[in-house]
Formats: sequence, C-alpha cells, structure tokens
Amino acid sequence: MCVICDVQVTMDDFELSCKGLYRALTIREKYMRLAYQRFPRTASQYLRDVEGETFKPEDQLQPVFTPPPKNGEDPFDTSSLPKNLGYVARMKDGLIYVYNDAAAADKHQPKDLPCPDYVTFIDDMNFLIALIAQGPTKTYTHRRLKFLMSKFNVHEMLNEMEEMKELKVNPHRDFYNCRKVDTHIHAAACMNQKHLLRFIKKSYRVDADRVVHNLKGKEVTMKELFESLNLHPYNLTVDSLDVHAGRQTFQRFDKFNAKYNPVGASELRDLYLKTENHINGEYFATIIKEVATDLEEAKYQYAEPRLSIYGCNPNEWTKLSGWFVKHRVFSPHLKWMIQVPRIYDIFKGRNFVPHFGKMLENIFLPVFQATIDPQSNPELSIFLNHVTGFDSVDDESKHSGHMFSTKSPKPEEWDIVKNPSYTYYIYYMYANIAVLNQLRRQRGMNTFMFRPHCGEAGAITHLLAAFMTADNISHGLNLKKSPVLQYLYFLAQIPIAMSPLSNNSLFLEYAKNPLLEFHKKGLVVSLSTDDPMQFHYTKEPLMEEYAIAAQVFKLSTCDMCEISRNSVLQSAMSNEEKSHFLGQDYLKEGPEGNDIRKTNVAQIRMAYRFETLCYELNLIKEGLKTG
Amino acid sequence: MCVICDVQVTMDDFELSCKGLYRALTIREKYMRLAYQRFPRTASQYLRDVEGETFKPEDQLQPVFTPPPKNGEDPFDTSSLPKNLGYVARMKDGLIYVYNDAAAADKHQPKDLPCPDYVTFIDDMNFLIALIAQGPTKTYTHRRLKFLMSKFNVHEMLNEMEEMKELKVNPHRDFYNCRKVDTHIHAAACMNQKHLLRFIKKSYRVDADRVVHNLKGKEVTMKELFESLNLHPYNLTVDSLDVHAGRQTFQRFDKFNAKYNPVGASELRDLYLKTENHINGEYFATIIKEVATDLEEAKYQYAEPRLSIYGCNPNEWTKLSGWFVKHRVFSPHLKWMIQVPRIYDIFKGRNFVPHFGKMLENIFLPVFQATIDPQSNPELSIFLNHVTGFDSVDDESKHSGHMFSTKSPKPEEWDIVKNPSYTYYIYYMYANIAVLNQLRRQRGMNTFMFRPHCGEAGAITHLLAAFMTADNISHGLNLKKSPVLQYLYFLAQIPIAMSPLSNNSLFLEYAKNPLLEFHKKGLVVSLSTDDPMQFHYTKEPLMEEYAIAAQVFKLSTCDMCEISRNSVLQSAMSNEEKSHFLGQDYLKEGPEGNDIRKTNVAQIRMAYRFETLCYELNLIKEGLKTG
Repeated sequence: MCVICDVQVTMDDFELSCKGLYRALTIREKYMRLAYQRFPRTASQYLRDVEGETFKPEDQLQPVFTPPPKNGEDPFDTSSLPKNLGYVARMKDGLIYVYNDAAAADKHQPKDLPCPDYVTFIDDMNFLIALIAQGPTKTYTHRRLKFLMSKFNVHEMLNEMEEMKELKVNPHRDFYNCRKVDTHIHAAACMNQKHLLRFIKKSYRVDADRVVHNLKGKEVTMKELFESLNLHPYNLTVDSLDVHAGRQTFQRFDKFNAKYNPVGASELRDLYLKTENHINGEYFATIIKEVATDLEEAKYQYAEPRLSIYGCNPNEWTKLSGWFVKHRVFSPHLKWMIQVPRIYDIFKGRNFVPHFGKMLENIFLPVFQATIDPQSNPELSIFLNHVTGFDSVDDESKHSGHMFSTKSPKPEEWDIVKNPSYTYYIYYMYANIAVLNQLRRQRGMNTFMFRPHCGEAGAITHLLAAFMTADNISHGLNLKKSPVLQYLYFLAQIPIAMSPLSNNSLFLEYAKNPLLEFHKKGLVVSLSTDDPMQFHYTKEPLMEEYAIAAQVFKLSTCDMCEISRNSVLQSAMSNEEKSHFLGQDYLKEGPEGNDIRKTNVAQIRMAYRFETLCYELNLIKEGLKTG
Repeated sequence: MCVICDVQVTMDDFELSCKGLYRALTIREKYMRLAYQRFPRTASQYLRDVEGETFKPEDQLQPVFTPPPKNGEDPFDTSSLPKNLGYVARMKDGLIYVYNDAAAADKHQPKDLPCPDYVTFIDDMNFLIALIAQGPTKTYTHRRLKFLMSKFNVHEMLNEMEEMKELKVNPHRDFYNCRKVDTHIHAAACMNQKHLLRFIKKSYRVDADRVVHNLKGKEVTMKELFESLNLHPYNLTVDSLDVHAGRQTFQRFDKFNAKYNPVGASELRDLYLKTENHINGEYFATIIKEVATDLEEAKYQYAEPRLSIYGCNPNEWTKLSGWFVKHRVFSPHLKWMIQVPRIYDIFKGRNFVPHFGKMLENIFLPVFQATIDPQSNPELSIFLNHVTGFDSVDDESKHSGHMFSTKSPKPEEWDIVKNPSYTYYIYYMYANIAVLNQLRRQRGMNTFMFRPHCGEAGAITHLLAAFMTADNISHGLNLKKSPVLQYLYFLAQIPIAMSPLSNNSLFLEYAKNPLLEFHKKGLVVSLSTDDPMQFHYTKEPLMEEYAIAAQVFKLSTCDMCEISRNSVLQSAMSNEEKSHFLGQDYLKEGPEGNDIRKTNVAQIRMAYRFETLCYELNLIKEGLKTG
C-alpha cells in the first residue's frame, strides 16, 4: 500500500511508473515545442520542478493564427505580401530543408531550422511502446483513471447544485450563446443531406442548359448529364440521393466512403462536391458559403472544415488556392484545415507517383516555396493565411503490415505499392510541419497545427504517434484500450474532437461511446459532427450533436458549456477570437483562466479540474522524489 | 407442443388463452363502438368469423373531426350554428343524461343514448383483471410477443435492402416531406425554452409599462412585476429561466411540475403560460401562434396541443373558448385537445368542489349544453368544433389506495378528500364522452376521442382501463410489464404516442425505452414531444425527437416513415386531411391502405405487418375451433 498515491502498488512499481510517465511527458513537451504546438503550463511547471529547474513562461510556445479581418480589410488582399527571402527549399529523405541558396542546397548546408531527429524520434517512440505495455504502469494508470472517475462522480453529487447556482446568477450567458466550434468536419460533407438535395434541385432549375461536365471527352449540359444518369432532379429525394449512412455502413468504412457519391454517381460528386471540375468548383463553393451563412446567422457556432491535398501532383495547392480566392470562400465562422488522405498505395498502384517521397514533396514543397517567396504565388499565400492546420485521414482499421523503425526505407526509397504504416505517415507529416512552422514564425506568419484523425479504429500505436506529434486529435475512441495512453492524454490535456454520431454509424454504438467517461475523468473533449451530410438529420448538425449527447449522457448545463469551451480551446481560432470568446486570460490554466461571463462554466468546476490535474501531476513528482 | 401455434403450450392452455383473448377483443370492440372510437376492420372480421357471422363494413364506426376551413371560410364564423333542440341535460350518478324536456328530466326518462352500463363495465373489467394474471395466457402471449420480435428481426435481415429500394424509386417523397403529427404535447410547454426566453425579453422591451398583473390586489406594470421578483428580463438566461428538466427531475414528477414556473415564479407562469390572467391570456396566445407559424413554415409538421379544463368551476369552458376566439388561436397545423388533471383531492382539500360528481358536471355539462343549443354559447360551440378529444393527466405513480368496484361510492357521494383511482376517473370520463359523441353524431357534429396519458408509471390496471375505453394513449411504457396487455394492444392496434425524451428525464433512461421493441413487434407507435419547453434543445423539437430515436435505435428510413404514418393515423386529423396525407384508401388495412407516394412506407413493410397481424388473429380463431 503506497501512502502517497493511496493505491495498492508496491513502492518500486510506483517509482517505475512515475519515471515512465515523467519521461513520456518530457517527450511530448519536446516535440510540441519544436513545432510551435501547445503543451500545458501546469504540466511544464511540474516537469521543471522535478528537474530542479525554474519554469520560464516564455518557454511556452503558442501557435499563431490569422485573426479575422478588421473593419474594411479584405481577407483576399495581396498588396502587403512579404518579400522574397531568396531561399531554396528541397526535399531530402522525406524532409524539406531550407537553404540560403542553390549552392548551399547542392552541398546540403541547410539553414538552422531544428528538425526532429529521425533516430531520436524512433528511440522515443520505442520507449513509449515499451511503457504502454509495461505491467506496473498499466496497473498504476488504470487505478488512477478509476480514481478520477469516482472522484468526478463524488464531485458531481456534492457540487452539482452549486455549479448550477453559479450559472443561474451569471447574466446574459447560457448554453445557447456560448461559443462552440465544430472541431472536426469535412468540407465535402459539411452540408446536411436535405441542403444538398435542395441545392441540386435549385441548380437544375437555373442551370439546366449550362455546360457543366466533360463526359468521355464531350462537353455536356447539366440536363444531358442527368439524362446520361437516367435521373431527373425533380424526382430526387434524400432516399434516392443516398448519402446518409445507415445500418449498412457499420464496420464498413468502404461502404461509407461510397456514400460521398450522390445517387451513387461519382459525376455528381465531381459536380457538386469538388473544387476542381468543369465549373471550377463553383457549386461546391456556393454550398460551403451557404453553410457559412447559416453559421453566421446562428452567431455562436463555428466550424473547421477540411479540404483535401492528395500529394499526387505539385499543382494541387495552386488549384485549391485558386478555387478559394476565385470564389472568395471566406467566412470568419470557418477555419480551414488541409486533410491528407493516407492513400499512397492507390496512387502508386496507378503510377501517379514514383515513390512516397514524391507524395510528401507534392504536399509540402509548394507551401515552403510560398512561405519563402509569397509573391511568387499570391493566391496560395493568401489561402495559407487562412489555413490553420493539417489533418491525416483514412480508414484506420486497414492494417498496413509495415512497422516503422530505423530499418524502414526512406520515403524516396519507398517505391513499393504497399502503403507505409500510420506512424510512418504521421512522423513525416509532423517533421515537415515542424520545420515549416519555424520558418513561418521567423517571417511572422501564421503556423499550422497537426490534428490527425487518430484512434477511431486500428492499432493503439496510432494514439502513441499522435501523443508525440499532434497538437490535438479527432476521435480517440481507442484510448479506451490503453490506460497508459489515456492517462497520458489526461496529464498532457490533449484535446480530442469526438463525434459520437459518426461513431454510431461506423464503429461504436452511441451508448457505448467513451465521451462521457473521458469527460468525467477530465480528458479535454469537444463535440464535432464529422460529416453532417452522412449522419445528421436537422438543419443545425452541431446543435443536434450536443442535444443528443446531452440527452443520452444526461449532461448538465455546466458539462455542455465546459465541452463548448473545450471546443474553442482546441480550435484554431486566433488569439483575438479566443480572448473575445473565452476571456482575456484564457491562456492561464485553472479557474483564473476562465471568464464565466463568457463561457458559462462554473468556477467550482474549473477549480475541481485544476486541483485534480495538479494532484495527479504532483503524485508523479512525489513518486520521483522517493527514488 | 401445439402444432398450430408452434409453441410449447398444452392444447387446453392454448384454448383457454384464445378464449380469453377473444373475449378481451370483443369487450374493446363494444366500448369503442359505443363511443364512436376506432376498432380495426381486420380484427372485427376475425371476431365475426369466430362467431359465424358476416362482417358488415357499415358497423365500423369512425370518429368525425372538423376539416380545415376551405378557401375564404372563417374558422370562427358563428353564422351557421345549428338551432336549439330544446333538450335538457342533467347529471345523475356521475353521468350526464339528456332528456326531451325538464318534465322528462324530473321523472328521469332520458333519451335513448346508450350509456355504458356501470355493472357490465365492472364485470368486463374484472374479467380482464383475471385474464392478465392468468398463467397460461401470460405464457402464451409472452411467447407470441417473443416470436413477433424474432420474426421482425428476420424480416429486417431479409428485406431491409428491398424496402430501401422501394423508397429510392419513390419520387418526391422522403422522410422530410412525410407528414408527421406531434401526437402528445401540452400547450403550456409547446414552445422550447429558448423561444419562451426570447418572448419574455421581447415582451418587456415593448410592454414594460403595461399593467399586466394583479399583485396582492394592486394592479402592477410588467416592470413593477419583475422588480417585485428581483429580476430584470435583460439578465435572464435559459439557466435562470430554469424550465428545463435536468437530472434532478428523474423519478420526481413533483419537481418536474415545478419546472412549469419560469424562474420558479408562479407569477410568470400566470403571465406567459395561462389563458386566464390580467391580460386575458394574450401572451400565451401569441406564443402558441408563433409555434403554429413555425409548424406551418416547416409544412409537414402538425401538433395536437392540450389545454386544461379542471372542473373546478362551470365557467371554465366559457373562459377558455373566449380566449380561443378572442385571440383567434387557430391554425390548420394544430388540433386541440382538452386535458383534465386528476386532482380532485386538491380541489376538495381547498373546498373548491363539494364532491367528485360536481367536478364531472363542471367538465361535461357545459359541453352537452353547447351541443344541444349551440347558439346559447357561440364561442364555446366554435371552440368545440376545433376540439378533437380529451386527455386525462397527472402523475400516475401516485397511488390512490382506492379500488374501483360495484361497491365504490357514486361520484355525487364521493365527498372525501381522497382522490378516486385512475380507473374510476377513466370510466366516468369515457362514459360521458360516449354519450356526448352519440348526441353530437346525431346532430352531425364532430366527435371527441378519449386519449389519456396511460402507462407512464403506476399500476398496470391503468393500461387495462385504457384498453377498454381509450381510442389511443400516450406513453404506454408499462406495457413492458404485462405480456397479455401488450399482446392485446398489438392485436387491437391501439396507437401509442411515445415520448422517449420525456421518459428519459422522468421515468426511464433513453436506451431502455421500449419504443424500438414495441415498433418491431408491430404495436402502433408514434413519436411525440410531450413538453418541448422542458426536454428539447433545438428549434424543431419534433425533428429532434425523430433524429434522436433514429440515431439511438438505428431506425431505417422505412421505420421512420412508418412511425410518421402511424402518427397521422393516431391523430385527430380530419378525414379530408388524412386522405390527403396518407392516400384516399387510408381506412383500408394492410398494403392496399397505403399510398407509398404519400407515406414513403414500403409496401413490403405494409404486407409484412398485415400478414403478421392476420396470422396472430387467425391463431386465436383456430384455437377457438379446437374447443
């Protein structure tokens, strides 16, 4: 019986666990700092205490996002783009290096932009792999998590009425006018099924005779296109549209992906849900702007839609940013993210890319070049101002069979058809983003967060890789399966965008979703819709998501407002917006960082969360002292 | 092993069960016919077959409801009210009798309006009480229900894709534009919390200086009223409004009832949610008309709100109809019902009524009088045109301690403070409605359905009483507890308006709600909101109800459209409206009664339901032959 931590573990085991957890936290802290991503002050403070050092607030780095335009400012204005630095960027071993000039590049004398060392990374990863399998640490973290659960239940029984009292006397603010961000949503499915149906019908009424598509080399009008599909939009219904996930999609990600095709026709997906098509993505832009208008009218709702970059072609960025600027797809209620599908195997199978390194180069080199010389590609530079991060997407349940290690081929050598593992993808995306962010910070530009889909299915190592590299993640369901990682996500307060309605259609029944459990234990969870087109029924998908969670999990108003607050913290809202939505001290942790007038989260709740977190961190500190 | 019914019951037991179920159905058929309520053709046909008689379609009675006004017609027009019949109506032994004149009344020589005989009723009831406790019948019905469940699961596995195919080729119609009726909703809580909050704030901005209330004998303005409550509407939030049911209301109907008071202040309930107050219920009427406008804009949604008649005072009807006419609270999207709270004990405790008979008289006599001489009370007569039924409401979990029997005191003798039992209330409400409907049919007027709250909690006898008397019910959760009654509700296809979100806050967790089970077995279930003010979060409470059921229970489109269709059938929409919404053959049973172009319910589903019902009815017929 350990007197300090109140649990039945022997002292040796306790010390072992604390050492492991401490090192795990330092690993995350290192990789976060390298990439201008976030690591909580409180945890840093404890780590410095353990090391006998003093915590320096200036060591706390923050990502930087472009604030919304001030009165009269044009978000598409290219007149004040920074000048050309004249640097040269080149890829080597899957990483982009920046050189002073071509000569330096030829000699590989890169500029000093610290890059996460490949060998150290694998070393750190292997340490974490061992840690999450280590018996004593599993026991220790399992018990701590059980304790956190019970502790919250007690807190709730004792303080629920007091929390509610705080909220009742809080003027003006209630759940409805707390800011909430849809932290995980795909642009191609950000409208609901009814919206898409209405749009298709409307477009036909207006544009039936417009040339909209290239059918086997022949330009066809919308009327001809629909005739070739044996359809008339007038007869379409949400049933025939068939984009909603049903019971058939459960455990079938492949079937789910097919639902992106309206009426099962990829031609209609091309016409309505793509940025690149015969009409330059006009319809897709219009639909997104309609969604944005709905959010603006709802006033308190925001979304972070994902647009795809595939890495097939170096021109993708230019085309995407051209679409963005041409149709002025901007709204202060939307924060853009880039999703990169993990489908090298498909591209290689069709000979679109020679090796994995080329895919990485197509994804990152244009961004480095626009960062070095913004005026060389003004549209891309403007677009990048409004991009806030990268996502990594695909069916996680597909097993790659590859294990990332020092013996893995370098990206340029990866020329087999087989897909690299999740971890391999994650490392190379993270490493390039880290270097890119350093370069952009030097130039005073906005940075990018890495926010992969992670732990929706598949191996537990996905969550381990994200623990090392991601500012925050989407899904996280599989944290259920590893107490060590779950406890680490709690200690490091890593935000998790959860989508229980999406999970309900794909991987996990609603009532079994760990959202409530994670929330009670103090993990930082937010609610997101993932794909309103496939999952939601009402005109307000995010509110539907909150309402269902509130009903099924019997969330209190304080719970719901805490989750809303989490969503703003997790999001890529700019510092200006976060100050406005959460209060100017939002970067402080604990109750002093909360402005109840803005968030409607009770200070009793904030104090409980903070004390609980400090208690757990302190336990690790104490465990290390005994050694 | 019985070769006919495929279950392990001995022949004697099988025959016994079938005889009991047969008699139970004939009992319901008798009471339904007496009151112009519905009993399904198919079941009647089987009953006649058993009796060796021929089924006569003209024996099938239907309730009659006022159709919406034609173009230009005024729903409040009193110019063509029928003339006075000169009859006299008087109460005797809790029942209203109609006499040719006062002389006949004095001699108690009533007109021939067949009244459900009291002794026979109790006899029938006692038979049913014995039946639902009878071992063999319990075993038999339990097994049949289990079989129905498995059969539906097989149907689903075999035909789900075929059903969906039917729906996909069905043009124009999908779940969104299928008509759906909110079959159970209380007028005083028909707006959501946000709507009420907005209305209060708006009314204050406009009417702060208006005299709106009588505070301890002194007329006060709205400003003064709010000051006396130490409130300013500007600061109000949904939290301080405090009308939403939370975890605190679970299993606490008393706490739930208090939630009808905004900010806990009965003064505000008076001002905003009552028809009778210093401003003649103007605000309440305005709120309801706003809800109606929302429904009209949604186009495919309807609601059947309940307004209260307490029976304290014979003037209640005149006041309520005065409110209705004065504020022209009419919408084709609303069908009105009268709810009668079962709170005689409270009224008697405060000496508002001398005995239970007076309460019944206050409830029914004015309606009889307006039926006999419409011009004597034109406003009430107009209002009654738009009233479609009676509901009986209160906390069913309160036990009365009284058992309805031939020895029970007559209503006029019931002068103790104790409340009569649920069954006692139900019988007297039903009996008066039955006689009233006969009189109104004779005059060509619309009739009233009896649709009590039943089986939300409390004794199983509630559901038994409703089986005898009610056209359809709200809740029905406790059918879970009695296989015999559940099977009888299936055989007689008694519609059940279920409100799983309401149950979730009060009596039963969402995932445990029997809605899905009932639906699969073939009971006729619809979805309703009960109290959007207390339970719902979004602007479209009925859609929220459907969306959550669809998600949690993984309902298919066909399931959802079947439930929508059920809601229209259950509702008091007029014959004209039902023909328009469901197809002109809607009164026919089975697939021929379904118009998929209107309902979006697959004919495969309709055929499955009809064949399954006929199979079960046939089993009973066969069981009786063997005797």
